[in-house]
Amino acid sequence: MELKPIAHIESPFPEKFGVPRQSGLIDSLRAWVVFEPEYRVREALRGIEGFSHLWLIWQFDRVPGDKWTPTVRPPRLGGNKRVGVFASRSPFRPNPVGLSCVELDRVDYEALDGPRLLVRGADLVDRTPIFDVKPYLPSADCKPEATGGFTTENPWQELEVEFPPELLARVPEDRREALTAVLAADPRPHYQKDRTRVYGMSFGGMEVRFTVEDLTLRVREVSPQGHKAAK
Amino acid sequence: MELKPIAHIESPFPEKFGVPRQSGLIDSLRAWVVFEPEYRVREALRGIEGFSHLWLIWQFDRVPGDKWTPTVRPPRLGGNKRVGVFASRSPFRPNPVGLSCVELDRVDYEALDGPRLLVRGADLVDRTPIFDVKPYLPSADCKPEATGGFTTENPWQELEVEFPPELLARVPEDRREALTAVLAADPRPHYQKDRTRVYGMSFGGMEVRFTVEDLTLRVREVSPQGHKAAK
Repeated sequence: MELKPIAHIESPFPEKFGVPRQSGLIDSLRAWVVFEPEYRVREALRGIEGFSHLWLIWQFDRVPGDKWTPTVRPPRLGGNKRVGVFASRSPFRPNPVGLSCVELDRVDYEALDGPRLLVRGADLVDRTPIFDVKPYLPSADCKPEATGGFTTENPWQELEVEFPPELLARVPEDRREALTAVLAADPRPHYQKDRTRVYGMSFGGMEVRFTVEDLTLRVREVSPQGHKAAK
Repeated sequence: MELKPIAHIESPFPEKFGVPRQSGLIDSLRAWVVFEPEYRVREALRGIEGFSHLWLIWQFDRVPGDKWTPTVRPPRLGGNKRVGVFASRSPFRPNPVGLSCVELDRVDYEALDGPRLLVRGADLVDRTPIFDVKPYLPSADCKPEATGGFTTENPWQELEVEFPPELLARVPEDRREALTAVLAADPRPHYQKDRTRVYGMSFGGMEVRFTVEDLTLRVREVSPQGHKAAK
């Protein structure tokens, strides 16, 4: 079956580094679902405000196609244990389709490229193609009794973030909370635990540099993003 | 993007009539997820037993393609009110992809066409192509605070089922509970409320005939399915 994008995301992450490892983790992280011209139809959203949460079905477009392996090494397991691809949400699957639950903040009907959806908690790289938007149905989708396999047994370790005030001041006010939460979620690749290393992350047009020692992340520099911001 | 089926469902519903209107509603309803030969790989399921629930992403293959309308009339609203397609789980969407949460009962590693997954609560017609199987992650997917729009405001009306013992005896014992639950969920099309009408439903190789008066469904006949069972 052929899928065509009906929308794309506009998120603060121009690249994969820093994107939360699961949807819904970071509430303050906002992104726009912008429909492609054919689907900018007000009527197609009628009633959507009654739903607090939505599903996005989207394309893992940053992974090489035609590549599937029966097992993957989830970051949550430190990247050194293998689980079956169907027991994981890894992008390296036979059909590279992602599934994310996001919170619907509001619908902007007035935008030039609207109506568009402001959502919270998206774990999508900027410009990711979206194939479907569905309402979250509590009666069918919420399973409080569900067990989460290795994801329950291995919760993420949060970092403490030291963000010097003079650097934080360079971040637009409405993005400070989100950026701090993204850092606290430990954006490092699982295989890098080098305390001397300076990591760089692009976020909302800024380049953020930081180091991590034990469970403390220190922000070292915040600067406007160079050529990447021009994209 | 091109999707290819990695599996298909083997469910008791040879046609759409009777299929629950949402996944997870009927616990006793069992179905098999049978992988296509290329994906019958034991390793690809490693760790899946740790998850009680799974997502199936599948194709609405009984709807005509290339047909999307901005609004749809959900059965839950009696079929006479319109909501936006993105505020519904209707099959008539730009990309006809379905999303269902099912309970994982067990993995059968020994079957000739195994390993295959026994699941509960599937709302898929027999032979529906499946594009992905993902674990349900409680931390990302379970939103007890979610509001369900028109689906919360309009819960389904359950029917009382009168199943004469001599007819129930014709149903294989392990399917009696599921069949009764399917009938209680009111399989009638929303626009048909004719108390004199005899409805026919195919279920697990049987043809079941029933009438409905007010909130009581009476089973009138159970017989082996004719030519349809041969498929």
